[in-house]
Parts: sequence; structure tokens; C-alpha cells
Amino acid sequence: MSFNGIIAELDIARLAPSANAEPDIRPLAGLRFAVKDLFAVAGRTTGFGNPDWQKSHSIESSNAEVIDQLLDAGARLVAITCTDEMAFSLDGINIHFGTPLNTQLPGHIPGGSSSGSASAVAAGLVDFALGTDTAGSIRVPASYCGIWGIRPSHGAISSQGVLPLGPSFDTVGILTPSRSILARVAAILLGLGGQSHKLTKDRQIKKLLICDDFLALAAPNIAPDIVSAMASAQGHFDSVKHINISDTIKSDCIELFNSIRGFEAWQCHGQWLEEFDPVMAPAIKERFLNCKNATEDEANKGRTQQRELQQKLAELLNDDTALCFPTTTALPPLETASAEALQQNRMANMALCAVASLGGFPQVSIPIGLTSYKPFVKTGLSLLANFGMDLAIINAAAAFE
Amino acid sequence: MSFNGIIAELDIARLAPSANAEPDIRPLAGLRFAVKDLFAVAGRTTGFGNPDWQKSHSIESSNAEVIDQLLDAGARLVAITCTDEMAFSLDGINIHFGTPLNTQLPGHIPGGSSSGSASAVAAGLVDFALGTDTAGSIRVPASYCGIWGIRPSHGAISSQGVLPLGPSFDTVGILTPSRSILARVAAILLGLGGQSHKLTKDRQIKKLLICDDFLALAAPNIAPDIVSAMASAQGHFDSVKHINISDTIKSDCIELFNSIRGFEAWQCHGQWLEEFDPVMAPAIKERFLNCKNATEDEANKGRTQQRELQQKLAELLNDDTALCFPTTTALPPLETASAEALQQNRMANMALCAVASLGGFPQVSIPIGLTSYKPFVKTGLSLLANFGMDLAIINAAAAFE
Repeated sequence: MSFNGIIAELDIARLAPSANAEPDIRPLAGLRFAVKDLFAVAGRTTGFGNPDWQKSHSIESSNAEVIDQLLDAGARLVAITCTDEMAFSLDGINIHFGTPLNTQLPGHIPGGSSSGSASAVAAGLVDFALGTDTAGSIRVPASYCGIWGIRPSHGAISSQGVLPLGPSFDTVGILTPSRSILARVAAILLGLGGQSHKLTKDRQIKKLLICDDFLALAAPNIAPDIVSAMASAQGHFDSVKHINISDTIKSDCIELFNSIRGFEAWQCHGQWLEEFDPVMAPAIKERFLNCKNATEDEANKGRTQQRELQQKLAELLNDDTALCFPTTTALPPLETASAEALQQNRMANMALCAVASLGGFPQVSIPIGLTSYKPFVKTGLSLLANFGMDLAIINAAAAFE
Repeated sequence: MSFNGIIAELDIARLAPSANAEPDIRPLAGLRFAVKDLFAVAGRTTGFGNPDWQKSHSIESSNAEVIDQLLDAGARLVAITCTDEMAFSLDGINIHFGTPLNTQLPGHIPGGSSSGSASAVAAGLVDFALGTDTAGSIRVPASYCGIWGIRPSHGAISSQGVLPLGPSFDTVGILTPSRSILARVAAILLGLGGQSHKLTKDRQIKKLLICDDFLALAAPNIAPDIVSAMASAQGHFDSVKHINISDTIKSDCIELFNSIRGFEAWQCHGQWLEEFDPVMAPAIKERFLNCKNATEDEANKGRTQQRELQQKLAELLNDDTALCFPTTTALPPLETASAEALQQNRMANMALCAVASLGGFPQVSIPIGLTSYKPFVKTGLSLLANFGMDLAIINAAAAFE
């Protein structure tokens, strides 16, 4: 069962300060957007991808802060989009609502958990959409659906009014069809971010570090075009070097990530899961219930390791360097793939996604056409840079267009 | 069974005359396009939407003339798209290949017969696509998929190397996501058209005639936005008047159209149908076999009526006037709609489409957002003008953007 990713339609706009002014000169005037069903919208009960969640929660009295920021900037909220249940998957399959379409590869998963947002953007239904990214939930669907996506620096975009999954990693991200819209929307949300942080426009990506070990994980039908995109872009940078990022990381990122996220996820939602015993996809429910075993001690130990990793990576990246690697390891599996195949695929992608998640670093996924395989299908190539370099990687991405 | 509309992938490009010149300054450089599976492509056997057709025909030795024109202009042919069998439907359902996705309304028909071209364009898989339009096969899918489409003046774009259905009405049309791409591609194909005709850039649409009787046929969920789009555009024209186009036509357009097309369709393909008895969707095959009853006498009588109608409409339209009306009467039916419901829907749309088909006049379908119903779904609003006013209606369409 496929659908367009939109689970509720609405139409919320805010008049320009001087309502009679024509034309509307606000920075996002004329753009329609959608939000994943875990952003608070005044007057609506958030669904979190699960009907039992919606039944057991109340109507929101105000919008998530980012929604207000976008409405003030002139954008118009027109839809709520499907999320994987409790945002706890990277697949984009939802047993209650269906699987949002992957418009470039129908019958294949769109990626998740910001599945509906990616699907609606790819199908041209909206000009941009908000999602969230804890373990890759913006980056994976951006890559699978052939669109632009950014996971921002952790805390750089307000998450007030957004349902949490693992607060140490949760970010509000943006999905768009083009770099120009991405830059416009990011400028609004980053400029008004909930935290004080050093986002400076004058910092530039001058050096590229191609992660050969991550590139080696890319499937044969996507690797050649990713390599060729890297080659075409290299003239735009002062230096391009090849590294094995594992030499810097030296730890099992997925295990480290899970030790912290598992504990936090249970802290956030364990009580609700036990109390309401919701109807959920068995595999997702089981994964979530397993989080009960995570301990605070392990999480704290993980956080110490995380800080060490952040420091090592920050030294590598400095204020002028971006890592460059495939966003995902392969084209999206079929919707009908076995649970084992999907699990294996999630793990493969998490290995690539965990660097930014653990580091709190911004990562932009750039759609790259598979000219040597299927000219009309795109896959994601990522740039990842130091904390606060969000606008810098969006600018640097122009080299790959 | 839904798919992305593409039935074969290829990659054909032509080097710029001076191959070392960087950048490629040809007018369509960088644009990827697809063609409906009834255009000859050198080295490939055309399929015409039916496997038995493909089996019983030979490999083409050269491209359809329009494909060469586009390749020379720098565009790159990357895909062959699905057509309704023998282009003999407006639905977009093909029992052999499946139903190309309607990305804005999954589960609903994409419209046909240029179904795969419309689907691929709407999904962003290609920058533009060629189709054909005899009874509405560009206009209906453009409207249903929320994209731009033009049926050109009859004969203005070469149909050499394109399988016929009713030569008195057959046209090669263009489907695109934007007016700017439509204008660029149309300029190439019209400029090199196979016939001599008076396409002048300096002729402008100054007057709009809103067809109230056609507007009255629009479903309640699309009519308000169409009316509102007309109202917003009216300042761009010297005069806007309301008419009943039936007062000028004064005949049953569908019956008139069928009397000619039926005879011509049988002339074109009757022998093949009888000789090969192909496996086809029963409803389409039955409709086609019924064409055997059409006589040349009736066709000639129809052609006389057609010429009278052309003359009356040409007088009404002059060199500065466009008719304005909904492209289709409603949003697309579900893929699972009954044969009767689909038949009724086809007849409703043919009534609107027959004016341009009989007149040989150009008609552009403009995607209009249903802001008062579903902000992310678009339906088609049409401008139709006198013979040769192809570029003029594309220019005039800017008023509705």
C-alpha cells in the first residue's frame, strides 16, 4: 500500500506585518511546506506515526517553534506527513498509514523515519518539508528519494515542540528539491536557532577529505557516479585528500550510538509503551522494548566516549574541512524485502550516519544522478563538517551540482 | 500495479558541433528527456504499449525527426515511457506494463495515453517528455499529474517517425514541469516543424474568452480554484469576456471527432489487428475493432463539418484571442474505478478536448494549485488559440503562474 506521504491536510499562513504590502517580500513568501507528524501544530493532536499515540495524547495549544519561525518568514504550512512509528526506523514503512511513495523507484522503500516529508518533496507536492534526524532519518530518505536534505548541527535548530527520541542526537532537519530552497529555509531556521552557537557565514569549506573506507561500502551501481561527482567537484576546493575515517574513529559507532540512544529513548517513551501497550509493527515495538535493558551507567560511559570522538573529529575537521562520502550504501530495497534484509540495510546505513549523529555535526545530502546506471535516479552524496558549519556545507555543495 | 512510467532506459546524446567547446551552449544542453513508446528510436523496436505489436514489427533504422531535433539542440534521451495500448485511451492504464504512478494522487489514474511521459515528468525523473495527442493524450495526463503540457497546432511539430492513430488529429506534444522548459523545448520543435506555417513571435493573446459552459462541467472541488486563477490573471489581458462555446460549435464534437478518427484508426491499424489478433485490454480492443464499422463516406462528411467548424472558431479567435476553460472536468478517478465510470470520465474529458483536436488549434494546459481544496494537488486550466499561436499561448500562460 503506497500513498503520497501526506496524512493530514491543513492550510496555515500568517499575514505579512503590513498586510496590504504587495508583493509579500518575506524571505519564504510563496513557499508551501509540510511537517512530519511529530511537530506540534496548534489545534491538532500529534500522531507520532501511531494511532494509539494520537488517541492517548491531547491537542496542542501552540506550534513547534520552528513552525512559527517559518510562518513568520512567509511560508505556508499545508500538510502533515507520515513518520515511521515513533520515528524508530530508517525504512519508511508504516503499517497503519502505508508506505509513502518513492517516486523515483516505485515499489522501493522511501527511507525513514521522515518518509512522508521526503516523499511529498520528491513528488513536488510541497516546496520543502521538515523532518527530524536522530540516526539518519533525514539523510536516508533524502538519499533514497533523490532530494536534498540537511541534518543540522545538534541544537542549531530549535526542537521545542518536537517529540524526542534521543535528545543527545535529535535534530530538526530540512528536505527540499533544490539547494537554493535548502539555503533559504536553513538560513531562517539556523538564524533563529534555540541555542547560541557560532554559525558564521564567512567560514568556508576549503578542504575535502574523501572517506575511502565508507566509499568502499557503496554498491557497484552507485559507486561510479559518486566517485565521478567527487572528481568533478575537486577543482572547487584547495585540497582533496583520501582518508580512512575509521582510523580516526577507532570504535564501533553503532554500538556507541545505541548505548546512549537506547537509554534516552526508554526515558522518553518507555512508560507510555508499557502503560498503553500500543498496536505497533512488531519489529519496531520489539526494538523499542529492548531499550528497556539500557542502563544509565552504560549511557554515561557512552557519552564520555562520544565526547572523545567529537574532539578527535573536530580536530580533523577544523573550520575549513568537510568529509565526503555516500549518504547510503545502496539504492533503496524493495518494500517487500525481508525483515532481515531491511535490518541489514539499516545497519549498513547507520554505520555511515553515526558519525554526524555522534559528533553533533551538520551533514548535507546532495542528490547525484546515476548517469552510468539509471540517468533518472539519484542517490545521496554527503558533506559533513564541524559544528556550526551548516551554511558552509550548503554553500560547498554547489560544487557537486 | 504502479510503476514509474519508464519501460526502457537508454542514453543517447549528440556531441556539440565543436566537441571541445565548454560549456555546451546549445539551447537544450543539460536537459534529459523521455519519449512515449510510439516514437521511432534507431536500433529499437517501437512497442506502442502492446507486446504483440513489438513482436510483429522490426527494429527502427533511424530516429523520429523530433528526436533528432532535440538531440541536435543538446538534450539527452534517457528513457522510453509507457503508452496506453495503441494510444487508444485517455486513462493511463496498461494491462501489460502497469499503471504509471500519479505522484500527486497515488492510486488514481495518471491519464493517458501519454501516461508514462506525464508520470516521469511529474516525478522529476526527466526534465521533459514527448507524447502525442489525438483526442487529449497530452492534455489529460498533464492535468491529472499537475504538470505543463502542450498540444501544438496540427502539423506544426513533425510527426515523421511517430506511430499514427488518426492523422487528421495526431500531434506530437510536450510535457514539462515548468513553463520555462516548455517554452524552450517548444521553440526548438516548432521552429523546425515539418510544415510551413505562420508561427510568429510577435502575435500576442490580448483577449480572453472564458467558456462558461465548459466551466460549468468542472467538479465542485476544482471549479473554485480555476475560477480564482482566471480572476487573478484577468489584469494581464485587454479584455476578458464570458461565452458559451457551444453557441459557436453547435454540433456534437465527440460524434464528429469519432466519425473521422474511427475511420482513420482502422485505416492505420485495422489490418494488423485482424491479422495478429493481439493480446490487448478487452475494452480497448473492442473499441478499436468497432472502428471497422466507420466508413469513408461518413469520414468525409465529418471532414466537411470539421472545416466549417474550424472556420467559425478561427473567426472567433482571430489572432489575439484565447479560449480559457478547465482541461479536465474533475480530479483523476481511482485506478480501481469501474469500466463504466472510466468510460463516462473519458467522454466528459473528450468533450472539452475535442475543440482543439477538431480545430487543429494549439492548447496549453497550465497546472493550477487547488488552494481551496488540496493545496498540494494541481489540476489543468487550458488556453486554446488560433492555428499557429503556439508560442503566444505559452507566453500568455505566464499570467496564470
